[in-house]
Amino acid sequence: MVNKMSGRPRLTPKGERTRARIVQEAAVLIHERGVAGTTLDDVKAAAEVSGSQLYHYFPDKNDLVQAVVDYQADATVSNQRHADLGSVQGVQAWRDMVIYAAERVQAKGGCPLGSLGGQLAESDPEARSLIAAGFQRWTAEISEGLRSLQARGQLPPSLDPDDLAVTLLATLQGGLLLAQVQRSTRPFETAVDTLLALTIGG
Amino acid sequence: MVNKMSGRPRLTPKGERTRARIVQEAAVLIHERGVAGTTLDDVKAAAEVSGSQLYHYFPDKNDLVQAVVDYQADATVSNQRHADLGSVQGVQAWRDMVIYAAERVQAKGGCPLGSLGGQLAESDPEARSLIAAGFQRWTAEISEGLRSLQARGQLPPSLDPDDLAVTLLATLQGGLLLAQVQRSTRPFETAVDTLLALTIGG
Repeated sequence: MVNKMSGRPRLTPKGERTRARIVQEAAVLIHERGVAGTTLDDVKAAAEVSGSQLYHYFPDKNDLVQAVVDYQADATVSNQRHADLGSVQGVQAWRDMVIYAAERVQAKGGCPLGSLGGQLAESDPEARSLIAAGFQRWTAEISEGLRSLQARGQLPPSLDPDDLAVTLLATLQGGLLLAQVQRSTRPFETAVDTLLALTIGG
Repeated sequence: MVNKMSGRPRLTPKGERTRARIVQEAAVLIHERGVAGTTLDDVKAAAEVSGSQLYHYFPDKNDLVQAVVDYQADATVSNQRHADLGSVQGVQAWRDMVIYAAERVQAKGGCPLGSLGGQLAESDPEARSLIAAGFQRWTAEISEGLRSLQARGQLPPSLDPDDLAVTLLATLQGGLLLAQVQRSTRPFETAVDTLLALTIGG
């Protein structure tokens, strides 16, 4: 039987929990060490499963990596959905949240979704297309917030919310990459704050 | 003897040429396939050198990868130096050039320097710090251009050229990552054009 939501074979509740634990532990390891730096043995140890259990859920590493991409895309889009970009205060709170999240880890690992893009785009077409879909959903969430900001008169009518959403996401991704490489959130803050000052006001 | 410019053991002219050929071929392969997807055997074949020749110049893959980082950082900074950001026409020509470069390859490989950052930041501290230095030099070049643009009255005096340089580089990097993952230069164009319209005028 196939689960309609995920398109995967249906698992028992216990199986779902085990699978979720494997994906979650793999996501943490991959964010810390990169895809190439994470072995299936590392994941086995972190998730406390046997090799045959791991193999049962993920016949090869690509399957696991793609499940991690799905997990990070869902987490990112869900975070964005809970942010309120529909007011200047909401945008400010969201700005503080993303900067704080980066500061907490000195920007190590970069964006949980974007960093997977940089690592997998040329080697795993399936992962690439999952990440692209995640970016699209993320952009749509930002865009929706900016639309309601504009409806309230807090974003100049000359700005296209869809274009600004893409620009904001690009700034986040690039700012996080500079911050990750420089081990300082400074460039990330500068980029985000400069764009916000240019659009929503300082 | 050590070469004062590069800090490497001095090579004969022929040795320098062979080394340069290896680095150049490795840079192409790594840009196309990623670091993890490029083997030393691939590089040997592309540069037409033997295993012992390759080993003579690069005892392990990390050495070669770091030489590729240096090569891409130098190439990027030199490209930026040849662009003229000191006039609106110059900025426009530079914008067209970076978009065209991405379009030519459907944004495959992303930014030659930035994509190395995304792949190596968590696994190779030496490469990470070389990439960080490359980003700093790149930012300084952009900043210098924007300063002269501002001196000519073509950039609002309220904008800080250093902050805008960081923001522009972040937009480039993030826009290229979105484009690389989506295999379309559209998000890259949107992000760059939106930021330029907000700062320099449409």
